[in-house]
Amino acid sequence: MSLNLPYDPENIFAKIIRGDMPCTKLFETDEILAFMDVFPQTQGHCLVIHKQATATNLFNISADELFALSTAVQKIAAAVKASLNPDGIRIAQFNGEAAGQTVFHLHFHIIPIYQGNTTKSHGSGGPADTDELEITAQKIRTAL
Amino acid sequence: MSLNLPYDPENIFAKIIRGDMPCTKLFETDEILAFMDVFPQTQGHCLVIHKQATATNLFNISADELFALSTAVQKIAAAVKASLNPDGIRIAQFNGEAAGQTVFHLHFHIIPIYQGNTTKSHGSGGPADTDELEITAQKIRTAL
Repeated sequence: MSLNLPYDPENIFAKIIRGDMPCTKLFETDEILAFMDVFPQTQGHCLVIHKQATATNLFNISADELFALSTAVQKIAAAVKASLNPDGIRIAQFNGEAAGQTVFHLHFHIIPIYQGNTTKSHGSGGPADTDELEITAQKIRTAL
Repeated sequence: MSLNLPYDPENIFAKIIRGDMPCTKLFETDEILAFMDVFPQTQGHCLVIHKQATATNLFNISADELFALSTAVQKIAAAVKASLNPDGIRIAQFNGEAAGQTVFHLHFHIIPIYQGNTTKSHGSGGPADTDELEITAQKIRTAL
């Protein structure tokens, strides 16, 4: 089943980490990369990944790597909260295609929720405008 | 907004931690408690909480507490995977009522997904049968 897929170094996040694909970056260290989701469910939807861990999902990442990731998720989510002032924030991490995972490099979604606004399905309506993503990203970066 | 609520020691998870309310327990240490969700979205839906942290959400938990929680989520999710053999597993953590949080003690959902089965809305159809929860819990415990 898809929970036991081998890691594919040609997945889109691996390409982003190598610099072979662009992204709207929020935060980067030797270990961590946070960037805007190009198919945002809401304004400010972003992703946090570990750059060294070749982990498809939660079941093949080390405790140290998971700690680095969790801490970064907390930090980025706090910046989303401070900069965009949403009414709520969802953290989601999907394992396996059946659970909604589409890129098989472990990642955490940070999804701000605005009261009264509906969330879009992931990928509905095509990718977001890069300039709009950058405007939102600039706001989030100021709170980091 | 609800992301800045003070911690209410009378919330239902605080009562479960104190032993004032029952739960179908999966795993417990000095720090961590994992138990079955009484309003399961799928078979095996369970929750992981920190027992000492009086944190309403992700924004008021310490790095050490978050590490203990994340490690426990990984451990319990692996046991759910091994025992129930779902096609996928969703990890979700909601901050604020607008994001779907209903109990204001920080908690992680572990939701196994079975291909072709629909997930129930949280709370739809009332609480699960305690005996059925215990049967599922016994399976998960054998994999811990």
